[in-house]
Amino acid sequence: MPVNLTAPDPRSLLPVKGVALGVAAAGIRKPDRKDLLVMRLADGAKVAGVFTKNRFCAAPVVVARQHLGMLDPDASIRALVVNTGNANAGTGKQGMAAARATCTALAELLGCSSAQVLPFSTGVIMEPLPVERIVAGLPQCIADLREDNWAAAAQAIMTTDTVPKAVSRRIRVGEAEITVTGMAKGAGMIHPDMATMLGFVATDARVSLPLVRTAVAHAANHSFNCITVDGDTSTNDAFMLVASGKADMPEITAAAASEYAAFRDGVTAVAVQLAQAIVRDGEGATKFITIRVEGGRNGEECRRVAYAIAHSPLVKTAFFASDPNLGRILAAVGYAGIADLDVEKVDLYLDDVLVAKNGARHAAYLEADGQRVMKQAEITVRVLLNRGGAAATVWTCDLSHDYVSINADYRS
Amino acid sequence: MPVNLTAPDPRSLLPVKGVALGVAAAGIRKPDRKDLLVMRLADGAKVAGVFTKNRFCAAPVVVARQHLGMLDPDASIRALVVNTGNANAGTGKQGMAAARATCTALAELLGCSSAQVLPFSTGVIMEPLPVERIVAGLPQCIADLREDNWAAAAQAIMTTDTVPKAVSRRIRVGEAEITVTGMAKGAGMIHPDMATMLGFVATDARVSLPLVRTAVAHAANHSFNCITVDGDTSTNDAFMLVASGKADMPEITAAAASEYAAFRDGVTAVAVQLAQAIVRDGEGATKFITIRVEGGRNGEECRRVAYAIAHSPLVKTAFFASDPNLGRILAAVGYAGIADLDVEKVDLYLDDVLVAKNGARHAAYLEADGQRVMKQAEITVRVLLNRGGAAATVWTCDLSHDYVSINADYRS
Repeated sequence: MPVNLTAPDPRSLLPVKGVALGVAAAGIRKPDRKDLLVMRLADGAKVAGVFTKNRFCAAPVVVARQHLGMLDPDASIRALVVNTGNANAGTGKQGMAAARATCTALAELLGCSSAQVLPFSTGVIMEPLPVERIVAGLPQCIADLREDNWAAAAQAIMTTDTVPKAVSRRIRVGEAEITVTGMAKGAGMIHPDMATMLGFVATDARVSLPLVRTAVAHAANHSFNCITVDGDTSTNDAFMLVASGKADMPEITAAAASEYAAFRDGVTAVAVQLAQAIVRDGEGATKFITIRVEGGRNGEECRRVAYAIAHSPLVKTAFFASDPNLGRILAAVGYAGIADLDVEKVDLYLDDVLVAKNGARHAAYLEADGQRVMKQAEITVRVLLNRGGAAATVWTCDLSHDYVSINADYRS
Repeated sequence: MPVNLTAPDPRSLLPVKGVALGVAAAGIRKPDRKDLLVMRLADGAKVAGVFTKNRFCAAPVVVARQHLGMLDPDASIRALVVNTGNANAGTGKQGMAAARATCTALAELLGCSSAQVLPFSTGVIMEPLPVERIVAGLPQCIADLREDNWAAAAQAIMTTDTVPKAVSRRIRVGEAEITVTGMAKGAGMIHPDMATMLGFVATDARVSLPLVRTAVAHAANHSFNCITVDGDTSTNDAFMLVASGKADMPEITAAAASEYAAFRDGVTAVAVQLAQAIVRDGEGATKFITIRVEGGRNGEECRRVAYAIAHSPLVKTAFFASDPNLGRILAAVGYAGIADLDVEKVDLYLDDVLVAKNGARHAAYLEADGQRVMKQAEITVRVLLNRGGAAATVWTCDLSHDYVSINADYRS
């Protein structure tokens, strides 16, 4: 059961002009399951993305990066193709050939060049991609292409997700109103710098390619790069932003323009909602935890402390048990790697409850107060380092029996 | 059930001349449980140790470090006192006073100075130490002091351990034969640079204090600093080496002497056995995993790769499930943080089975072979980076349902 998260009402997912989606059951891993998605983009759409930093990045990540880099200035990305059930990672030259063959097959069907197609895969690592089944499923995807097909698309890209994740917003940008609709998948192997997560956000806004690139990086840093379920960084993560340019508005070309800020913030808000949905649907999650570290010398040390807490299996199991064994949080602060941290300045809050003051249990802290907060489904941990003005926020979930069950049984 | 580990036969634990041990049930956390240990050392014993690097180190760690540093050259440490049930960490000035009061009370009973006593605590963090109960229990410990009391001592220092951990060796050093007997506790929060683990190794060897210090650091780096259960570094860890000097032998004073090497290697062998016992008794462990990374440019990058694998919850749950989902290991290698790693050179073995060659699934690899190894209780993962001559080994265990249960219920 995800934490305060339900499947989106399909009627709430607004079509984005110039972006059509079609799905198929290609039988990649399991029969009779929608496991293949094609997103067809209008000519001239601007596309940018951020990818996993894992050195063992999957073949589709390598190919997508290449295709984004090799486009002619007057050509544009015309399609994205996403398969679940197989990550096409750790598959060597054969995997590269399979990713390219997928792009070539779709390009032929759409009448564009192979370099105008970006491939994405998610699923089991180190197994050969059944490329012939994918190619065989593409015509069914194309027959299904519709702009109002986001709900089916969000469903098709799921792996261990228990609910599809998608959201829409209407955003005022200058005189115009734009649509931003996004979807994401991911539940385990979630970590900053991307995770087994795929995120696709599309908008009809007219924005120059450099600013689409700037906006996707900004949105990732404030959303998908602030979440963790288990600290594993996947081989396949990608977060893509598509701007179809079909809205009736002047093109946004200046980073300093208020229109750019409105566009960027709208995209970021959608990305934050999707990223938090991934944590809420974290494998086995029963709690949604916000970790806020304040008073650091810089953002980097705040993030280190926040991630030390978020990754601690002892902290995460205490949340699962609703056990205010909060010394485990102090211990995690202590080993986060800030060599000159003065622990006698550290304060710890659980929601509004002051637990530790000046590095030690606060005299007025009552375990009953900690217990009350720990029982909630949504909890904020606030650590004050009291050594500077920087802050960072990380979202995570608890570690439950179900996490072990899900990951022990994933392939069976 | 620990992995291939049983309680030591008490008759196998050899007394160390000049080191007497006594235990008591002081009622620190639970009634009728031996939870207090005094180790009384002969005058002139040489003592050195290594401690947690957690910035939130516990009050007893601070006091023990101070006492080791403030001794007169002609005085020696006369006693160690260890309590379980309460870590005396995150307890501020009150905790420091409690640790000092424990030392003072024991010093009065033994007729030495407070600075000649070293305190150790393990248990729940951020709760006040019931110092009056500890002080009240000390006379019972003293009444129980015996040199052949290691089995009771190893039992008294346990927390979530399921079996006591102790081992003895007789070592030839030049013309003499020395005894090395050690014990350790720890099952969770196990990590390099110490963990909620306490280790005490005693020997009757005559060794100069500088060489005792060198030997304890060497032994720690090859044993307790090579293990991990859950990646949490505790506030209280300590590994202490006591050389009572009661053996009939010339004092070892030269680091280059073959006698020093024999002494150091004997102590290290005992420490390795104790460290591995901690992993075998890792919270919820069902598998003992050796991770060997070879062919790195330096030891540091080999350790980073080994720990990335050892800490991955996805890898650890796959071991628990005996699921050869070995792409998870490649993914961990990829995110270990070696920026210029050429993944096309990486090979992966599971015991003698070549799983991946040149960064991709090996053509001749059969899942049945991987499955066969994964079912074993002891497994070696071998990663060849093929970029240099360095290597590192880390020992860890799997992540099971019981890990979650133990840590969710620890305080209840």
